[in-house]
Formats: sequence, C-alpha cells, structure tokens
Amino acid sequence: MNEQELTIEKVQSLIARGPFHQWLGIEVTSVGAGEIGIRAKWREEWVVNPDRGYTHGGILAALVDLTADWALVSKTGRGVPTIDMRVDYHRAAMPGDLTAHGKLVKWGSQYAVSEAQVFDKDTILVASGRGVYFTAPPKA
Amino acid sequence: MNEQELTIEKVQSLIARGPFHQWLGIEVTSVGAGEIGIRAKWREEWVVNPDRGYTHGGILAALVDLTADWALVSKTGRGVPTIDMRVDYHRAAMPGDLTAHGKLVKWGSQYAVSEAQVFDKDTILVASGRGVYFTAPPKA
Amino acid sequence: MNEQELTIEKVQSLIARGPFHQWLGIEVTSVGAGEIGIRAKWREEWVVNPDRGYTHGGILAALVDLTADWALVSKTGRGVPTIDMRVDYHRAAMPGDLTAHGKLVKWGSQYAVSEAQVFDKDTILVASGRGVYFTAPPKA
Amino acid sequence: MNEQELTIEKVQSLIARGPFHQWLGIEVTSVGAGEIGIRAKWREEWVVNPDRGYTHGGILAALVDLTADWALVSKTGRGVPTIDMRVDYHRAAMPGDLTAHGKLVKWGSQYAVSEAQVFDKDTILVASGRGVYFTAPPKA
Repeated sequence: MNEQELTIEKVQSLIARGPFHQWLGIEVTSVGAGEIGIRAKWREEWVVNPDRGYTHGGILAALVDLTADWALVSKTGRGVPTIDMRVDYHRAAMPGDLTAHGKLVKWGSQYAVSEAQVFDKDTILVASGRGVYFTAPPKA
Repeated sequence: MNEQELTIEKVQSLIARGPFHQWLGIEVTSVGAGEIGIRAKWREEWVVNPDRGYTHGGILAALVDLTADWALVSKTGRGVPTIDMRVDYHRAAMPGDLTAHGKLVKWGSQYAVSEAQVFDKDTILVASGRGVYFTAPPKA
Repeated sequence: MNEQELTIEKVQSLIARGPFHQWLGIEVTSVGAGEIGIRAKWREEWVVNPDRGYTHGGILAALVDLTADWALVSKTGRGVPTIDMRVDYHRAAMPGDLTAHGKLVKWGSQYAVSEAQVFDKDTILVASGRGVYFTAPPKA
Repeated sequence: MNEQELTIEKVQSLIARGPFHQWLGIEVTSVGAGEIGIRAKWREEWVVNPDRGYTHGGILAALVDLTADWALVSKTGRGVPTIDMRVDYHRAAMPGDLTAHGKLVKWGSQYAVSEAQVFDKDTILVASGRGVYFTAPPKA
C-alpha cells in the first residue's frame, strides 16, 4: 500500500467506523511510519470509583490496544486482529481527556509487535503496554 | 473480613457503584472463595467492526480485568488496583451478552494473581487472561 | 499427524535433541491430547541467590515456555516458535527437581495459546504462565 | 542509597554472586539512573535446535528478566523479586554473544516496571519485554 495516502484524515475516518472508537471519542492527532498519536474524550461512564473519579483500567487497556494496533496502519492500512496484549498500570487516571502514542516494535508479515503509552491531561504516564497483532492478509 | 457476608447481592452492589461497570451492564451470577461469575449486557457501542458486528478487544480486556479482580473479593472485600494484565484473544465475539468466570491463581497479602475467561452467548471461549492485583491495605 | 505415535519415548527423544533441554535435564512424564507433564533436574547453576539457594526466575520462565510449547505436541508433532510469553512468579523455588504441567488453552492453525504451571519438589506451585505459539507449517 | 557508589564494578560483583548469572557469563557494560547494559557469553548449552543452532527462548527470557531487574539497581541497590514478566520473540538468535539493555518505565516504592531489549552479535533485536518488580524493602 501507499503510505503517502495515509493522512490523519484518512486514518481518522477508518477508526471512526468503529462504534466503540466513536464512544471513546478517538481523535487521531498524528500518523507516521509505524507510529500514531490519538486523543480520547473523557466521559463519566469511564469512571470506576465514584468517590475518587478515576478511570477504569479497562478503558486504559482499550486505549493501549487500539493505539498499538493503529500504530501499524502505515504498514497494514487497516486495524488488524489482536493476538494478545499486556497492560501495565502506573497511576490512577483522574478525569480529563487522555492521549496515547503507539509505536511499532517489530514488523512481521505474519504478526507484529507494537507498544503504546497512555497519558493523562497533564501528560503524566498512566498506563503502558504492548500487543501482538495478526498482520497476515485476510483469507479471500 | 467475613466471607459469609459476601452474598451475590452484596458483591453486585459493590460492583454497581462503578459507572463503567453500570455501562457494561455487569450482573454478578455467582460468588465463591476466590471465584466469581458475571454477565455483561451487550450494547451497540461495543462494536469495532460495523460490517461484521464483533466486539472491540478493549471490552473483552475490561471484562478480563474486572472479573479477575473481583474473583479476589472473598479475600479483599472490594475491588483492588490492577498492577498489570494480559489478555489473549481466541475468537471474534459476535453480538450478544458475554459471561465471564474469574478464579484466584495465587493469593498474597501484597499482590495476588488471578485469571479470567470470557465466553460469548453460546458459551464459546472468546478471550482469556490474567492479572496481578495489589492487595495490600490502602494507606490510612 | 498421527497422535497414536506420540508416546512419551517419542516426545522425550524430540525434546532431548535440544542441548538446552538436556542441560535442564528434561524428562517427559506424561503426554496427552493438548497436555504434557515434565520433570527438570535441579542443578547448582540454576541458583540466583547463593545465600538462600533459590532458583533464578529465568529457569522458571524457560520451563513455562517449553512446557506450554510441548503441550501442543499432540497437534504439532514438534516444538514450535514462541511468539510471546508471560510468567507469574508465586514463590521462591528452593533447591530440588521441578515438575511442570502444560495444557492447551486454544488451538489455531496459525497460532495457539497454551499455559503451564511449575511446581517445586513438594508440588507447591512456584510459577505459572502462558504463551502464544506459531503453529503454521514452516515454509518449504 | 547512594547512586554514586554504583560503579560498573560494584554492580558486576553483585550480579556475579548468582551462580546462574555466572553460567550466563553476564558482564555489566554500563550502569545509569534506571538503566543498565549487559553482555552474555554464548555457550553451546543455550541451543534449542541443533540443526540450526539458535538459542532457546528460555535464555532470552532470562536475559530480559535479569536486565529489566538490574535496570532498577540505581534505585534498589540489589536484585529484587520479579512479580511477573512478558517476553516477545522477534527473531531466532543465532550463535554468538548477546547484549541487552534495560530501562526503568515507572518507579514505585512497592513495585516498579522496567523493560529490556536483547540483541544478537550483530546488534539485531531478537527479543524484548518487560517485568514488574517488587521493590518494597525485605521484611526485617
């Protein structure tokens, strides 16, 4: 595929097709070779602890997964299936939009590894992780 | 704490305090020593692929995390912080409610390991994984 | 392939081809459909802490990896490449032979997930984990 | 503790106390704040496949574990227990000494996350991963 065509707008439109991505309010902020930057719009439904207001780890896991996945878009041209994923939690994520950056670790034509970091509104690292993605072409 | 008091209703009320748990429609179906069963109510916002309709891996990750976490409730009496988590994806999760079962692997007074399996509406395994949870008492 | 031919002796001879497996003193104790049992012979070089004598986590990781890998032998007929692996450490492994049991979690013709538990000489669980293995046939 | 005292020689002597570290031929090549570089001396016992000669994934896992652990030495002053670890395998590691670099991801006084990369003799990345380490002081 042609990397030149992968503008932020194009990747944004691909990601926005997914209802869950819409619900997360995903906005693509940068796209590069084996890299992506995204922003997610905080919503009250993300909260796990109503007293302290921090975001559920499942939301952070979803952001790690999708950011690491779409970091591959310059190679794949699409979202690809996750084989498995690991997430490390570093700090409670208090209310506010989150940003994430994803980066290719190792490309492969069968599967690829990439990693992601998630930051709170003050750009403090709240979670990070990595996943393995199935990059072989879909069967005809 | 007293395990006898941990009825399904009590655990349900603890889990239901979290807005994200409410959004996931979590219903506790069983509670035992180092075990829990839950059900999550499918919603359209879970979908990643609008053509095929399957659920985003981030939702499955959230279910693995919360199920493994609450499998510890007979010991902890509460949800505890996740240190890290791994999720393996086994099959696409098509529309329909999901169920999950969580089980303690190894208890510890500083951190504990537990695992979870997520099943689709036909009780086919769609994801599984494990997490490490921080079980030390919160600082006063 | 023909599962009937996969006797303990046959799997033992396949595993014993690897010099590292020989160094670990791997003895196959059981083989089943998607399952394996092994024993590893303790050696002084395994120790990380000379004062307390417990085994290095890298040895336990190697046992998780090889046991989960060879749990697939009834399907693969061979050791297959590890895509990635997770190991949880439960207790210090004091001097003495270790045993391990591996079990298939989910078979796939491209990749498969399996898990393993490692026990000390008193059959106490010292480590457990899981891996994803590349099961596609080698390219001709 | 006093970071100034943590010379390469001091860390080398701490690591060399472990018989398994000696067997791996670990040589410390650099030490920094939340960082370490090491070299491991190839030996024939590392091989898993006698026909192709590449190193067992368990050896690479051990290097990820120990490198990520000792990346914390500027904070811990010692090797600390691994809570859990993940390793991704990127390429077969052919015969030859291996090098590894470890780096702190997030320090914590109860547990810390760090990561490691392992390179072959041509400085090609063969494996990478991360671990969570128990950093609380040992009980008196």
